[in-house]
Amino acid sequence: MDAKPLLQQYQHRVEQQLKTVLSHTCDADRVRQAMHYSLLNGGKRVRPVLVYMANQLLGGQLGQADAAACAIECIHSYSLVHDDLPAMDDDELRRGKPTCHIAFDEATAILAGDGLQALAFELLAADTTLPTEISLKMVGILARNSGYRGMVGGQSIDLCNEGQQITVEQLELMHQHKTGALISASVELGALSSNRASATDLQALNAYSRAIGLAFQVKDDILDIESNTETLGKPQGSDLLLEKSTYPALLGMAGAKQKLVQLNQQAHASIDYFKDAAAPLHWLADYIVERQY
Amino acid sequence: MDAKPLLQQYQHRVEQQLKTVLSHTCDADRVRQAMHYSLLNGGKRVRPVLVYMANQLLGGQLGQADAAACAIECIHSYSLVHDDLPAMDDDELRRGKPTCHIAFDEATAILAGDGLQALAFELLAADTTLPTEISLKMVGILARNSGYRGMVGGQSIDLCNEGQQITVEQLELMHQHKTGALISASVELGALSSNRASATDLQALNAYSRAIGLAFQVKDDILDIESNTETLGKPQGSDLLLEKSTYPALLGMAGAKQKLVQLNQQAHASIDYFKDAAAPLHWLADYIVERQY
Repeated sequence: MDAKPLLQQYQHRVEQQLKTVLSHTCDADRVRQAMHYSLLNGGKRVRPVLVYMANQLLGGQLGQADAAACAIECIHSYSLVHDDLPAMDDDELRRGKPTCHIAFDEATAILAGDGLQALAFELLAADTTLPTEISLKMVGILARNSGYRGMVGGQSIDLCNEGQQITVEQLELMHQHKTGALISASVELGALSSNRASATDLQALNAYSRAIGLAFQVKDDILDIESNTETLGKPQGSDLLLEKSTYPALLGMAGAKQKLVQLNQQAHASIDYFKDAAAPLHWLADYIVERQY
Repeated sequence: MDAKPLLQQYQHRVEQQLKTVLSHTCDADRVRQAMHYSLLNGGKRVRPVLVYMANQLLGGQLGQADAAACAIECIHSYSLVHDDLPAMDDDELRRGKPTCHIAFDEATAILAGDGLQALAFELLAADTTLPTEISLKMVGILARNSGYRGMVGGQSIDLCNEGQQITVEQLELMHQHKTGALISASVELGALSSNRASATDLQALNAYSRAIGLAFQVKDDILDIESNTETLGKPQGSDLLLEKSTYPALLGMAGAKQKLVQLNQQAHASIDYFKDAAAPLHWLADYIVERQY
């Protein structure tokens, strides 16, 4: 199956939704503009796509997944705004555009990130398409997975790992928190939004999202080195590999590629149970490991 | 009525609750410690006290107000951590202790604030003492009042006002967002936690919280100048008054004190409807305008 048209449909859908949430001027218009700027920054919307795919897998209605798709993207967007700050990664460009604290100012970027996080929960609470117990459950999952035991914790672990010699297990723990937790939340919220998710469904999807989340990181690490080799015109050397803790650095390039294959197999196996309905998720698992950028 | 023992009881109650929420070590222990440090910083817990008082006013059970009391304090605490950052107020001390970014580091302080915000919503979602529709409503109110149309918006308005000549109306708009929104949320969540709040109850309490929220600010502005007069040993002069937009600067000291009396009267009048049950709230309204620090 080629699920690319589906991917584009979901990307377009969440884009339209996101455009509306911050479109009205308000008393504090500078921070609203900074939030709007950061949220509509041309992202690939991978997490909302996962929300919609999980919703459709279980026979849900797309309209019931909109709030979750937007909420997840608000959280992802706030994390990028705060990550880019001078005290964190100190990045001036993101996708070729000035980062929030460059386009506005540092204080406004801190506030915009804070405002986007609050907006995520506001959107979940305002949704009227789902039973309140489902929406409240989503709030709890999103809060836990984005907080200190999830994404925020992962960023802190990453900071603590800087300049340290770490093991593959420690690297994996960091990624599971830093990016894995929000990917898992995307799939889980999408499944819950169908209002038909069984415990078995959630368990299978959880295994799937853990595998693709990690695969995404391993592939990122591999691309980083292989694109370095090409663009910098110098051979991939052990000094380059040892600068930062990455899968190729810890496992060697062959080991990292083998790990990627294993994770891809795990992803496929974990959703066998859904039969043909899971075709888009199978496609996405392959898309993640085969991408060239 | 002297509600001071009640105040202390509620302060103690929320303190005990807050001590438990971040007490277990986790994978990302540095950020957890920074959150714990910031949350248990000896604050006066005014907002949780309001939550409990509103809960009791309507005949609720205190146990049903614990999640809301803790959640509100998490939000307040995160806002202080981010406010103290170098890019914002650049404060190194809070209540005589090093601020979070001094005690830890700037990146950790940004993450600790983010983690405390997520924790607020996690606590509301995890509560099992209330119907889910009430808890979800609380999430929505807290998210809106702490976000860009509430507290975060107020901080942004405050930044934009810096160095500007503003009107009393603009000053009021800023305070209503910056501190008023969270005080209103405290009273509203407390009322909802009783699971007995009528629309009329909420309307009366909303008028009360708007009045005490603003009174708190006017009193702060007055104390700031009167303590300057004493501690700096120089007379209160118009140059001092004009440095920053405050109520005494815009209305004169006599005008500011008159405004304080009016707001206090409004606060009392707005809760007449509850008769004797509102005695603690009447006491608190006076406490706010009579305090000397």
